[in-house]
Amino acid sequence: MIHVAVFGYGTVGKGVVEVIDRNNDIVSAASGDKVSVKYILDLLDFPGDPNEAKIVHDVNVIISDPEVSIICETMGGTGAAYKFTKAALEQGKSVCSSNKELVAKHGAELMKVAKEHGCTYLFEASVGGGIPVLRTLTTALTAERITRIAGILNGTTNFILTKMEEEGAGFDETLKTAQELGYAESDPTADIEGHDTARKISILSDIMSGHFVDSDNVPTEGITKIDKSDIALASGAGFKIRLLGIGDRYDDDSVRTMVAPFLIEKGHPLAGVCDVFNAIFVTGNILGDTMYYGKGAGKLATASAVVADVIDAARKGSSTMYCGWDETPVKAADSSSAKSRYFVRVSEADAAKAKALFEASTDIGVSDGKAGFITGPVSDSAVEGLDKSVIENMIRIYE
Amino acid sequence: MIHVAVFGYGTVGKGVVEVIDRNNDIVSAASGDKVSVKYILDLLDFPGDPNEAKIVHDVNVIISDPEVSIICETMGGTGAAYKFTKAALEQGKSVCSSNKELVAKHGAELMKVAKEHGCTYLFEASVGGGIPVLRTLTTALTAERITRIAGILNGTTNFILTKMEEEGAGFDETLKTAQELGYAESDPTADIEGHDTARKISILSDIMSGHFVDSDNVPTEGITKIDKSDIALASGAGFKIRLLGIGDRYDDDSVRTMVAPFLIEKGHPLAGVCDVFNAIFVTGNILGDTMYYGKGAGKLATASAVVADVIDAARKGSSTMYCGWDETPVKAADSSSAKSRYFVRVSEADAAKAKALFEASTDIGVSDGKAGFITGPVSDSAVEGLDKSVIENMIRIYE
Repeated sequence: MIHVAVFGYGTVGKGVVEVIDRNNDIVSAASGDKVSVKYILDLLDFPGDPNEAKIVHDVNVIISDPEVSIICETMGGTGAAYKFTKAALEQGKSVCSSNKELVAKHGAELMKVAKEHGCTYLFEASVGGGIPVLRTLTTALTAERITRIAGILNGTTNFILTKMEEEGAGFDETLKTAQELGYAESDPTADIEGHDTARKISILSDIMSGHFVDSDNVPTEGITKIDKSDIALASGAGFKIRLLGIGDRYDDDSVRTMVAPFLIEKGHPLAGVCDVFNAIFVTGNILGDTMYYGKGAGKLATASAVVADVIDAARKGSSTMYCGWDETPVKAADSSSAKSRYFVRVSEADAAKAKALFEASTDIGVSDGKAGFITGPVSDSAVEGLDKSVIENMIRIYE
Repeated sequence: MIHVAVFGYGTVGKGVVEVIDRNNDIVSAASGDKVSVKYILDLLDFPGDPNEAKIVHDVNVIISDPEVSIICETMGGTGAAYKFTKAALEQGKSVCSSNKELVAKHGAELMKVAKEHGCTYLFEASVGGGIPVLRTLTTALTAERITRIAGILNGTTNFILTKMEEEGAGFDETLKTAQELGYAESDPTADIEGHDTARKISILSDIMSGHFVDSDNVPTEGITKIDKSDIALASGAGFKIRLLGIGDRYDDDSVRTMVAPFLIEKGHPLAGVCDVFNAIFVTGNILGDTMYYGKGAGKLATASAVVADVIDAARKGSSTMYCGWDETPVKAADSSSAKSRYFVRVSEADAAKAKALFEASTDIGVSDGKAGFITGPVSDSAVEGLDKSVIENMIRIYE
């Protein structure tokens, strides 16, 4: 019997218990022995819940139980989750996590602790929910030098951008719809300001580079400034707007990361990713482009990824580990001369004045009294120095 | 040092040598020791080739050399490739193959031989070229019961269908273009008649079901009957036409496979897969839909997948194996009552007569003197019994 404990009986924790229960024959067969949830750690009691008897409030009950070999950490945050994860690893218990915040901040250290104690720290569910992108990067694309990872990594913002386009609606009303449907939280800041995406692209960039990419250092721009006229103008010119997390790795092993909305040509596979779906586009030096698509969040998709890690931990014990990164900060690429083309939105009256700011520009039309044009390549430093008084919004073109 | 031999110095074999050479630092680091190609088996001599000195004509030189631990089989076919693969596995040498025909026919037996001799038989490159779908199915989606795999598995036909749509061109002229560009072979039968796709969907269905799915038993229809009017009519109604290989697994573990062109709604991720790209759509009972996208063929993409297998074989010796299937034939699903909706193309003059054959139908327009309509759900047996004298083409709707 493989005894599992779940830390945190929230949405994902409940999903983990449900997946282990519903697919127990498959999960047990793949693990090589029957898998069973012995404890659930939570502050609350859940009276009436079918798993009520498994709830414990003291983490030490679990950590001191030699029968428990695998922990699923679905608590979130970097406080208790960090302390409990470390304590479990130090007892030789493998930990499978969906906690992107903790992985982004302390992943390197926790993998090291796991290695020292003959167990493993896995976290497929922390990026891309049910999309097995970490395992793909570390076990399948092993013959490749990965040069770019670009992902639609947040379902909430992708839902909002898709709905704004489909319904010609504004940002605020669409956010409200997303909240009513349960696709956005009551405090949506982490999603709409891009922080959630920043954490995920740093984890992906950690793996790509082998070094620590601090999510606090990722230049991060969310989608709150996007107006329905941006989407209408972009659409008329053959583009969709998507919030991307991007990590670029250069020949000198420096890395540039960024979270920002981009205009993506409609023919590009990332442009076809709609609603709450996520997708990660990976470029290798030999393979070229590949893309991995699926549900990036949600109770069961995320739980399925956690349970796949449980199976891996059960199968291979300490011998499985995502290609770890170390705690050394990655070398940051000098991006001051990096150039991008931009979509620019201005009021019709200011179009001539705005266009004069750029060496080259191509009109793409007018919508709702707003004019749109696309600039030639402009460096980041030039953009910083621009007099933006008449510019209402600028969004990079993805290329 | 990890000594590798390559069987067959054709396009993929040359690619394998190139990947091991170009990315030697990455490949060696991932393998845990320096990887080097010691022999290349081919009937020809390749005078002047930089690897000329490694060419041998006698397989026994390789099989009897205890230094060689891993073979890359890129010969193709089921004759010598089968004999040589089996002989190598019997000597405990792991074999990494791109040979879909051999895997589809003898995969179960060869995995068994590998297991008996403490080595492994891997074949990521045999399906989807550079898309790591087999590894994903067997190492990442392990907590799932897979219920459907639907793939665009052949780059040649997808290129032809994409170009026919983009250029409003007919099948024959587009095939000729594809041949001139090197995207179709001079004898294109295996591609355009769907046989290549049938082999790949049988391998995927082998893995999904755990039993042998004979590619000769997959009902297979190619794209030769598709006319530019089909594409125009489908496009006008919001569909793209794609050649799919589909495997469906039912609750009683029976499996239904099929290769046929389908009309796919433009919003579906498979519809966005263009040109020579491939994509595999996988549905799990918990995770829902995921999709894996990339180059399905080509020298380097395929070679990169073979080399990823080499790394796996080097890292884990005999402990790595795709979740094998056995030689027992899978239980075939009874599909006589399965229903599909169809797109039907007829000459305008025959439209009324053709529509009278179906209980329900929806007109979708006229193009080049051809009328198109979409039927309600019709069973396979009803389609077989139809008087098709006025029907020019019928294509299933994907749903």
